[in-house]
Amino acid sequence: MRQALTGQGGSRGTVLGRARVRLPHALQIAEQHIAAEDVSSELARLHVAIDVVRAEMHELRARLHGALAQEVGEFLDLHALMLDDPELLHGLDELVRVRRFTADYALRVQRDRLAGVFEAMDDPYFKSRVEDIDQVIGRIHAALHRRDCELRGFAGEILVAESVAPAEMAQLQAQGVIGLVTTGGSPLGHTAILARSLHMPLVVDCEAALDRINDGDALIVDGGTGRIVVEPGPQDLRDYQARERGHLREKRQLARLRREPTCTLDGVDIRLFANAESREDVAEAHSLGAAGIGLYRTEFLFLQRHELPDEDEQFRAYRDAVMGMSGQPVTIRTLDVGADKTDRTGLTLRDEPNPALGLRGVRLSLARRALFETQLRAVLRASAYGRVRLLVPMVTGAEEVREVRRELARVAAALRAEGQPIGEVPLGVMIEVPAAALALPSFIREVDFLSVGTNDLVQYLLAVDRNHEGLGRLYTPLHPAVIRVLRDTFMLAQRHARPIAVCGEMAAAPEYAPLLLALGLTDFSLHPGTMLEVRRRIRDCDFAALQARRPALLRARDRDSIERWLSEAAG
Amino acid sequence: MRQALTGQGGSRGTVLGRARVRLPHALQIAEQHIAAEDVSSELARLHVAIDVVRAEMHELRARLHGALAQEVGEFLDLHALMLDDPELLHGLDELVRVRRFTADYALRVQRDRLAGVFEAMDDPYFKSRVEDIDQVIGRIHAALHRRDCELRGFAGEILVAESVAPAEMAQLQAQGVIGLVTTGGSPLGHTAILARSLHMPLVVDCEAALDRINDGDALIVDGGTGRIVVEPGPQDLRDYQARERGHLREKRQLARLRREPTCTLDGVDIRLFANAESREDVAEAHSLGAAGIGLYRTEFLFLQRHELPDEDEQFRAYRDAVMGMSGQPVTIRTLDVGADKTDRTGLTLRDEPNPALGLRGVRLSLARRALFETQLRAVLRASAYGRVRLLVPMVTGAEEVREVRRELARVAAALRAEGQPIGEVPLGVMIEVPAAALALPSFIREVDFLSVGTNDLVQYLLAVDRNHEGLGRLYTPLHPAVIRVLRDTFMLAQRHARPIAVCGEMAAAPEYAPLLLALGLTDFSLHPGTMLEVRRRIRDCDFAALQARRPALLRARDRDSIERWLSEAAG
Repeated sequence: MRQALTGQGGSRGTVLGRARVRLPHALQIAEQHIAAEDVSSELARLHVAIDVVRAEMHELRARLHGALAQEVGEFLDLHALMLDDPELLHGLDELVRVRRFTADYALRVQRDRLAGVFEAMDDPYFKSRVEDIDQVIGRIHAALHRRDCELRGFAGEILVAESVAPAEMAQLQAQGVIGLVTTGGSPLGHTAILARSLHMPLVVDCEAALDRINDGDALIVDGGTGRIVVEPGPQDLRDYQARERGHLREKRQLARLRREPTCTLDGVDIRLFANAESREDVAEAHSLGAAGIGLYRTEFLFLQRHELPDEDEQFRAYRDAVMGMSGQPVTIRTLDVGADKTDRTGLTLRDEPNPALGLRGVRLSLARRALFETQLRAVLRASAYGRVRLLVPMVTGAEEVREVRRELARVAAALRAEGQPIGEVPLGVMIEVPAAALALPSFIREVDFLSVGTNDLVQYLLAVDRNHEGLGRLYTPLHPAVIRVLRDTFMLAQRHARPIAVCGEMAAAPEYAPLLLALGLTDFSLHPGTMLEVRRRIRDCDFAALQARRPALLRARDRDSIERWLSEAAG
Repeated sequence: MRQALTGQGGSRGTVLGRARVRLPHALQIAEQHIAAEDVSSELARLHVAIDVVRAEMHELRARLHGALAQEVGEFLDLHALMLDDPELLHGLDELVRVRRFTADYALRVQRDRLAGVFEAMDDPYFKSRVEDIDQVIGRIHAALHRRDCELRGFAGEILVAESVAPAEMAQLQAQGVIGLVTTGGSPLGHTAILARSLHMPLVVDCEAALDRINDGDALIVDGGTGRIVVEPGPQDLRDYQARERGHLREKRQLARLRREPTCTLDGVDIRLFANAESREDVAEAHSLGAAGIGLYRTEFLFLQRHELPDEDEQFRAYRDAVMGMSGQPVTIRTLDVGADKTDRTGLTLRDEPNPALGLRGVRLSLARRALFETQLRAVLRASAYGRVRLLVPMVTGAEEVREVRRELARVAAALRAEGQPIGEVPLGVMIEVPAAALALPSFIREVDFLSVGTNDLVQYLLAVDRNHEGLGRLYTPLHPAVIRVLRDTFMLAQRHARPIAVCGEMAAAPEYAPLLLALGLTDFSLHPGTMLEVRRRIRDCDFAALQARRPALLRARDRDSIERWLSEAAG
C-alpha cells in the first residue's frame, strides 16, 4: 500500500529501489555491577574491544584507495581520534574501576555523558556530533560481544537503518547500494557531509522509517526534499521517470559541449584549465578540450604511503602528465602537504595547534631542502617533454619567491651540467595567503604567472576554517573583502601582463562564473568533472554586460547584496 | 679560580649568585628483557608510572595561579598531551609486549625513536623538540623508580643542571632562584621561551657547565650573550656592578616619566590607553596617567574555573574597573575565549582542527545568546558608574556589527524597563580579521570606534600561527601587507572621525612606535608594564618628520627594507 514519509534531505538525488532494512541493536543496557576481583578482567575485556575497533578502522582505512581514501579517510580519522580520546578512555576505565560497572553499562553511561554535553547546545551542528559518539560507542559495544557491526547492502538497494557511519558508506557504495534512509542523523552530520561528497542520495531524521518500511518494499527516495514514497503508485512512477528523462536530456546536452569552445555570448574567449591529480584526470581534461592543466597537484605521490617518492618516480608521473596534454601547458604545483593534508612519511608535524597556519606548502619545501630539490629536479626533467610551469603554494611575500627562484636556477644549472635536456619553466605563485595578495605590487615583477587559491584565501581572509561545519554560514566567498581582493589582484595581474587563473572551488561552481567574469577573470582552472557545466554557464554570459555591472558588485556591503547581484546577473 | 664558560643566550638578564649544581641521572639503560609471564605486570608498572606523572602534572597545574597559570599552563598542557599521545603509549606497550623489554629499556628505545625523527631535521626548532621528549620520558623514568624528579633551589641561587622542564621553572622562580644554566637545550626550546616570559636569566647549551661548576661557586651569568664567569675576579665584579648601576639609573629615569605627558618632540599629543585584566592593572594604569582603559579583557572571569560567572559577579568586576579609572573611559571587550584561550566551563569546543579559525570571539557570543546577554547586562549596568565603551572581538563584517547592535539595544531597553540606570555605551569593533579591515568601508558608519588587534591581524594576514615557534621567522608585523592594511585602516578611521587605537603587542614595543606614528596613529593601548618605555620613545619622536618619511615606508618591498626604514627613523 502506498505511503508517503518525510525526513530531512541529507544528500541530493532521487532513486528508485528495493528497501533493505537493518533493525538497530539499541544500546539500552540496564545498570549492572561486577565484583571487585573482576575489575581487571572487565577492564581487559573493554580494552580488547577498543583495540579490535581500532584495528577494524585501521583495516578499513587501508582498504580505501584513490580519491575516496582522502574523503572517507578524514571521517575515519575523526572516529579513530575519538577512540584515542583520553577523556573517553579514562572515563570508561573509571566507571569500571571505581563504580564497578560492567563494560557494557560503562559504555552506556559514558555515551550519555558525552552526548548530554552536545544535546544541551542550541546549535544544530553540535547536536549532530551525537551521531559520531553513537557510532563509535556502538562499534565498541558490538566488539565487546564479538558481533560484526558492518552493514551489508546489495546492488540497486536502498538501505534503511537507524544510522550509517561515514566509514560504512564507502563500503555500501562499493557494494552498489544506491541510496540511504536513516531514522536519526542530521543534514549537518558527518554522514550527510560524506554522502553529499560521494553523490549518494540520503534522507536523514525520518523517524517512522523503521516502523513503516519493510524489507523488500519498493521505495522512491528524494534526498533533496527528504520525501520518501513507499510502494509507489502509477503516478509516482510516471513522475519519477519524467524526472529521470529530464536528467538524461541534460546530460546529453552537456555532452554536446565537449567539443564546443568556451566563449561568452559576446565572443570573448575564456580559457578553462583543468585541476588534476591522476592520469585519468589528465586524459579527461584533454578529451574535454581543456586549455592545459592549471593545477597539477603532487600530493597524491606523497600521501597514503610510508616512504617518500624518489626523483624517478616523480619524474615519470610528471612526464606522463606533460605528454598526456600533448603540447598544452601543465602547471605542476610543488608539494602542498600540511593543514588538512597530513602524510605518513614523517614530513608534516603532527601536533601543530593550528595546522592551517602552520608549516605547509612552500614553508615545508624551504625547510626540507633535499626534498624540494628532488621535486624540482623531477619537474625540470619533465619539462623536456612539453610545456611545464612551476606553481608554488602558500607564498607570503617577495622573500620566498626569490628563494624559490634561486633554488630553481641552481637545480637547473646542475641538470644542465649533467647534460639533461630541460625546457623553459615559468615560475608562478598561488595567491592564497592574504599578505601575498595585498603585497603583490611589491613582487609581481618577480613572478611569471599567478593562480588564485580561493579556498584558502577565503579561509584566511575571514579567519574561518573551511572544514569547520559549525561555522558553515560564515565561510563564504560572497564577502565584500573577498570581492575586493579578487578585483585588485586580477587588475594588477592584467596591468603587468601576468596570466592569472582561479583554481579554487569558486572557479568550479557555475553559479559564481558571472561574478568572476564581472571582475575580469578570463582563465578558470577546475576539476574536469564540472568543466562542462561551467562551460555552459559561461556560454550564456555576456562579458561586456557583466563588466558594466561590476561597480554595483563592488558597492555591495554584505552577503545579501552580493547574492542579490548574483541573482540579477543570472536573471 | 676564575674561569669563563660559554653557552648560548636563552633568556636575557645578568645575575650574580651562588651555583646550585644538580647532577643528571642519565637515561643510559642497557637492553634488558623480561619473561613472557611478566609482561602484564611490567605493563602495569609502566602505566602506574605514567599515571603518577599525569597526576603530578595535574597537581602542578592546580598549584599555579594568576598570570603564571596561563603562561606555564600552556607548556604543562603540551607535556600532558605528549603523555597521552597514543603513538607514545602504543609504542611503549608494544616494546614491552612484543619485544619483551623492561619498561626502563622500552622508555630508552622509544625516546631514541622519537628524538631521532627530530634530530634528523635541519631546522633548529625541530631539534629543540628533543628537549620536551627528554623531559617527559625522564619524568616517567623517575616515576618508575618512585624517584622524586623535582628540582629544588634556594633564594639567590643559580641552578646548574642538564635540563629544566618548563613546569619546574615556575617553582624555581617561586623558590627565589635567580638564574639557570643548562648543559642541553636551545634558545628555541620551550624552556627558553618560558624563561624569557618569566624574565628568568638562562644560558643553554653550555656543555662544560656540569664539569666545571661546583656547588657553591660564585657565578656571573649573562643570559643575553651566553657568557658565564665562574668565581669572578675583581674586574668582573666591577663590570657587573657598573652594569647594575646603569640598569638602576634607567629605571629611575623611566620612573620620572610617570607624571609626564605623552607628547612628541613637535608637540603632538599621543594618547596611551592601558590593556588591563585585573584590578591591579587598572590601578597601575591610573597611576601612570593612562588616557583610559583601551582594552579591558573579560576572559579572566571565565578561565581557570568550572562555572560561568553570573551577571552580578561580572557587573562588580566591570564596575570596579570603571570606578578605578575615575572618569576616564573603560573599553570592555566582550568574551574572547577560543583559539589559544580555552576554558573549562564547556564553553569552547575542544576538538577544533584549527582553533584560531574556529568558534571564538563574537562568533561564540552570537552562538550562545544567553551568555552574551548576561555579559551585555553586566556591562550596561556598569555604565551607570562612569564612561564605558563596548568592544567586540573577531568581527568579520557588517552582519555581525548589526546583530550585536540589535542585541545591545534590546538588552538596554530591557534594563531601562526594569528601572536600571545606564549610560551611553559606544560600540566598537576589533580589527583583527583581515576581511573586517578590507571591508571596513562597507560598515565603518555603523561603528563608533575601532581597535586594531595586530597580533591576530598579522597571524591571519600571513597565515602564520603566532605561537608556532617553528615559523617564528615568518611571523612579523614588518610585512608590506601589514603596513598597507594599517595605513588604509588608520586613514579610513580618520576620514570618518572614528577614534582608532592599536591594542596588539605592536603598540607595546617601543621600537615600533616610530612606524605607527608615521602611519598616523595617535592612540596606543598597551599593558601598563611597558607604558613608560613607550612614552619615552614617543617623546623622542618628531611626528611631522615621521609623517614625511611615510612614503618611503609604503614603498618598502620586503622585511629588510622595512627594518632599514625603522633603523633610519630611529637614527
